[in-house]
Amino acid sequence: MIAALAGGVGAARLLRGMVEVMPPSDITAIVNTGDDTVLHGLHISPDLDTVMYTLADAINPETGWGLADETWRVMESLGRLGGVTWFNLGDQDLATHCYRTQRLSEGAGLGQVTAELARSWGVGIRLVPVTDDPLRTRLQLVDGPEVGFQEYFVRLHHDVAVSAVRFEGAEEARPGPGVLEALGTAEVIVVCPSNPVVSIGPLLAVPGMAQHLAGLRERIVGVSPIIAGAALKGPADRLLREMGFESSVVGVARWYAPWVGTLVIDEADAALAGAVESEGVRCLVAPTIMSSVERAATLSRTVLDAVG
Amino acid sequence: MIAALAGGVGAARLLRGMVEVMPPSDITAIVNTGDDTVLHGLHISPDLDTVMYTLADAINPETGWGLADETWRVMESLGRLGGVTWFNLGDQDLATHCYRTQRLSEGAGLGQVTAELARSWGVGIRLVPVTDDPLRTRLQLVDGPEVGFQEYFVRLHHDVAVSAVRFEGAEEARPGPGVLEALGTAEVIVVCPSNPVVSIGPLLAVPGMAQHLAGLRERIVGVSPIIAGAALKGPADRLLREMGFESSVVGVARWYAPWVGTLVIDEADAALAGAVESEGVRCLVAPTIMSSVERAATLSRTVLDAVG
Repeated sequence: MIAALAGGVGAARLLRGMVEVMPPSDITAIVNTGDDTVLHGLHISPDLDTVMYTLADAINPETGWGLADETWRVMESLGRLGGVTWFNLGDQDLATHCYRTQRLSEGAGLGQVTAELARSWGVGIRLVPVTDDPLRTRLQLVDGPEVGFQEYFVRLHHDVAVSAVRFEGAEEARPGPGVLEALGTAEVIVVCPSNPVVSIGPLLAVPGMAQHLAGLRERIVGVSPIIAGAALKGPADRLLREMGFESSVVGVARWYAPWVGTLVIDEADAALAGAVESEGVRCLVAPTIMSSVERAATLSRTVLDAVG
Repeated sequence: MIAALAGGVGAARLLRGMVEVMPPSDITAIVNTGDDTVLHGLHISPDLDTVMYTLADAINPETGWGLADETWRVMESLGRLGGVTWFNLGDQDLATHCYRTQRLSEGAGLGQVTAELARSWGVGIRLVPVTDDPLRTRLQLVDGPEVGFQEYFVRLHHDVAVSAVRFEGAEEARPGPGVLEALGTAEVIVVCPSNPVVSIGPLLAVPGMAQHLAGLRERIVGVSPIIAGAALKGPADRLLREMGFESSVVGVARWYAPWVGTLVIDEADAALAGAVESEGVRCLVAPTIMSSVERAATLSRTVLDAVG
């Protein structure tokens, strides 16, 4: 059994590779919900959906988010009405949010609803939100107010300086159904190449998670989302610096050291393997750019083989 | 100045005729919100939208609800996900609900949001929800539970026996911004040919409304939604009977007598004019079937001329 800590695009790609090399039913992905937002009354879970759509081979391959063969009738009409359109929602994608919101309003938990959606989309792995409770990543802007994650990421194109990050609701949140069990029974726990601050950070902020993970450190293998000092996509490099860490595999190792036993870094960073090990983290060097499902499969084999 | 008490399709048609014979800006439509529902997290106001779309000449002329040239991508996808699809929402129509829900979540009142939507849709009359407060028509089924209006009307095709109707939230509801002012300044108050029980009923249930209207009785002109004993559309005939009234223009006159001074009945019911007057309601006979905008305009002229 394998557990994976997952954010959005990078995690989705690694998991897509993983189902090529092992039975999907042996994999549990524990997914960030700090990105979740309510817009137009709809409960949107961007990371859960990116992983789900990617595993369903339905993701838009050009953007890495949203669905292929998507249409935009609702958003076009909403634009004509002067509505909020900075967060673009395709017509088919909207059906996912409608389904989720309705089921939540009927009293179902987010984990239950996620399982139903994953089944409908034909996803074979177990997809588990880190918590069923409200958890919201909030970023304090240097030159502005505190904003929600999607405002930062989408509306402001993460092109603004951040002085602090917090996870609203984390103190009262409980690990979702199946989360601790999946971690406890996993032979390997994979930390997907997701943003350490705002994708993996919220998972650690749920009470009990950091402690639980620290006790499983030898079975935990991370993949660095930073390659040659930069994030492939998104603001991981910038946020690491803003949190006072180096934007490098060494910074990632330092950030993860309390609970990650092994870090896989890209070949481009091979020269830094020693510095990573100096942080007390075992280091493996491998190609980590997942430009195809085959490369993702190869990387996931490396990751799975990293532990005993 | 004219005020109109309005439900859905019948009201929309009469108002569409009325804007042909007088300046739209002189008309305030006070619209039922007892049909409102929240589905998929979206706040849906079917009567407000039917009136708005009709006045925008955007209504689907075949169904009388929803938009012309509509597409159904979201609902098709929602069906594949096993979601709730008995209440059909077109893609462009969904944009209206997204806009409304988002604005309400930002703290705007329903009246304010309705004004914004009406402006975007190019509606010239003033469109006012009867209340900004929650008001929900609930029907007790003879052979089943109490259900919300849309469940009764759409999911059950109003093909079930009802023993009682109540308006949840009515006791705490206040007339919406502009409602009492519009009634107070109107030379004529038109009761559109809407369902007396579940379209006009909720307007009367808002505290202050029935009393206020009773004091304006001589200026109030109703159009019977019952023609030759039957409703043109919907369950008005059935519900009148279930509430213990005749399904006829005489039953309508008796139901409305406390506050309606004049009732316009269709030529088909000319023989019942005397019986209507016996209920203490002045009676006018005219063609009331609005099969075209021209006929609706002619009817609205009759209605407007009915008072002094």
